[in-house]
Amino acid sequence: MNISHRVESMQASPIRKFLPYSDAATARGIKIYHLNIGQPDIETPKEMMDVYHNFSDKILSYGPSQGLASYRKALVTYYSNNEISLSENDIIVTTAGSEAIIFAMLATCNPGDEILVPEPFYTNYNGFASIAGVKLNPITTYAETGFALPSREVIEKLITPNTKAFMICNPGNPTGKVYSRETVEMIASIAKEKNLFVISDEVYREFVYDGLKATSILEIEGMEEHAIMVDSISKRYSACGARIGCIVSRNKELMAAVLKLAQARLCPPTIDQKAGEACVYLDEKYINDIKDEYCKRRDIVFNELQTIDGLVCVKPEGAFYIVAKLPIKNAEDFTQWMLEEYSVNNETVMFAPATGFYATPNMGLNEVRFAYILNENDLKKAMTIFKSGLAEYKKLAK
Amino acid sequence: MNISHRVESMQASPIRKFLPYSDAATARGIKIYHLNIGQPDIETPKEMMDVYHNFSDKILSYGPSQGLASYRKALVTYYSNNEISLSENDIIVTTAGSEAIIFAMLATCNPGDEILVPEPFYTNYNGFASIAGVKLNPITTYAETGFALPSREVIEKLITPNTKAFMICNPGNPTGKVYSRETVEMIASIAKEKNLFVISDEVYREFVYDGLKATSILEIEGMEEHAIMVDSISKRYSACGARIGCIVSRNKELMAAVLKLAQARLCPPTIDQKAGEACVYLDEKYINDIKDEYCKRRDIVFNELQTIDGLVCVKPEGAFYIVAKLPIKNAEDFTQWMLEEYSVNNETVMFAPATGFYATPNMGLNEVRFAYILNENDLKKAMTIFKSGLAEYKKLAK
Repeated sequence: MNISHRVESMQASPIRKFLPYSDAATARGIKIYHLNIGQPDIETPKEMMDVYHNFSDKILSYGPSQGLASYRKALVTYYSNNEISLSENDIIVTTAGSEAIIFAMLATCNPGDEILVPEPFYTNYNGFASIAGVKLNPITTYAETGFALPSREVIEKLITPNTKAFMICNPGNPTGKVYSRETVEMIASIAKEKNLFVISDEVYREFVYDGLKATSILEIEGMEEHAIMVDSISKRYSACGARIGCIVSRNKELMAAVLKLAQARLCPPTIDQKAGEACVYLDEKYINDIKDEYCKRRDIVFNELQTIDGLVCVKPEGAFYIVAKLPIKNAEDFTQWMLEEYSVNNETVMFAPATGFYATPNMGLNEVRFAYILNENDLKKAMTIFKSGLAEYKKLAK
Repeated sequence: MNISHRVESMQASPIRKFLPYSDAATARGIKIYHLNIGQPDIETPKEMMDVYHNFSDKILSYGPSQGLASYRKALVTYYSNNEISLSENDIIVTTAGSEAIIFAMLATCNPGDEILVPEPFYTNYNGFASIAGVKLNPITTYAETGFALPSREVIEKLITPNTKAFMICNPGNPTGKVYSRETVEMIASIAKEKNLFVISDEVYREFVYDGLKATSILEIEGMEEHAIMVDSISKRYSACGARIGCIVSRNKELMAAVLKLAQARLCPPTIDQKAGEACVYLDEKYINDIKDEYCKRRDIVFNELQTIDGLVCVKPEGAFYIVAKLPIKNAEDFTQWMLEEYSVNNETVMFAPATGFYATPNMGLNEVRFAYILNENDLKKAMTIFKSGLAEYKKLAK
């Protein structure tokens, strides 16, 4: 008996695969600053927690496969507040953004079909693609140019007869890139011309800095049949453990297909949806305060990285990640070394090597992603340790 | 742009596809007794609800991909109480039994591979198989013989070079069949001889009547490498909305593969796992009372069905379903008619036509599944309406 090839050939999560080393470090009494995973330290809104505290149903029952009616209605309000006009029928609630992406891939692609995705990209897209039997065809972007997309001509050359969709993440994980309206319109225009879907991962919608605004694929005219948006409350409300997301499209045929997938797995978690519903009605101040906080953190990390000789990175415009190209050869080795060999006063730092964020072999070998999800003080300490660790590691001439 | 063939060819959930008719009936002021879906009316344990009420973390954060350590440890206790000896590493927590089945299919089969499954089977296996690109190859069983499995010889003839696993549900949904230890051993023996996995869906473990005991695939000797058990707290604790299940195997290579799948989707819902944990420590009386209640309900439904001329059904031994072969031609038409045309004092009954529970075309056309998940009084009323409805429908010579 063999394990299936499709799972055997799947990469282990590059974000989580260093966990054994961090567990070992913790066991040795080392404190680790975790900049490796997008788990914010921001408190979940009280209004959300109150839903759990006050849940008074006697039976924790199934909800509808497409999500609770009241929550889908609330989401219409949420999107309307974000200048996206929808009906409840355009929304199916999912078990986090993960399930929304899997549904989008399954509904748009047959096994062997291709999705064009700018790299570096959120590494779990690889896992979802393995599950769906889809090939991710990368549009390579570079740290040196701030992970800007190449020209229309370059992108169009990557389209094959098997290409069924674009997958974009805007604002971008891991790049922090926020695509301009012109860029989103370019992607949309290619999609219309070449008859492709655009799956747009917009879970960081609110986290954009310096007066920028994220453009949703759903705002682009003429994209009714092409646009699929995936979303999640995980980062927005620091509610990663609720596992609530959604898939949104005005393409009725697509949504009928997604509903079939949704019916197969019955429904997303019930109370967690109600908790998500409460977040829709939070005061605007809640998100604005968090955004200000992340902006401050971004500046700390970016400014510290700027002081490192030979390091390449561009100021992120959104989300809470930054990718840095380090003046070393092997970021995985460095990551492991920081956990196994290095500490300052029994403290060290964990980050995510970036190779797993690329589909092209040997890309990102010397890059890492930081998630700036710790408070100012911890972040400053973490960056100090990172800098001294990097200097020490370089001396080892690795 | 087309929807993928794999989703286009997926059947809509036969359990949920009559919802528009029931919604319309409700809108007309008709009360519907829902025997169509396995949503129990039993109260969720207070101990479980208290976990939601008392959750005091400030951040609703990700848990580990394999599930919370404390919950996996609790599950070891639960299985040990059920005479199944496991270590925490044999268990990965999933988003309900649905995800456990999808993971099991993805990890054991490549696209195009086959799984042997006794039919009628839980209809959503079809959806999971479509998602995983797996072909379900049915072992047909019959109402007349109480859905007993055929002989070893008949089963072995169904094995092809592409067969990778058996999938059994024991106690059975929709049949109520509880396989004897000898039957489970026969399946295990074939699996060992032919080098197949056995995926055993045991979510109804506790609900067995008449002094019988369900045999877990994990109890069978020599099956360490072959046995995969999928489980869920949905029915056991009337917690369908929590979406907590697990996949269990002592095959380390398989569990490493499942972990990769689990890491791709990050983690199951956090608070819901803690709620599930509380259930492990419930007094035995909780389950025994529910079992007694379901047994009483089974008798009501079975005895009423026995009074109908030309109806074939065998007394279920477990779970809370019964499949009945009706003296009519088309159970789907009858189901719809009951919702659209028939009512007694503005009340009617909804059940699940059984065609969707078969992979063989034209099987089960005149069969329906009842879920006996309502209280005695409602169940009696529902069966009275069912009987009079069936008599009336037959008069229409349909």
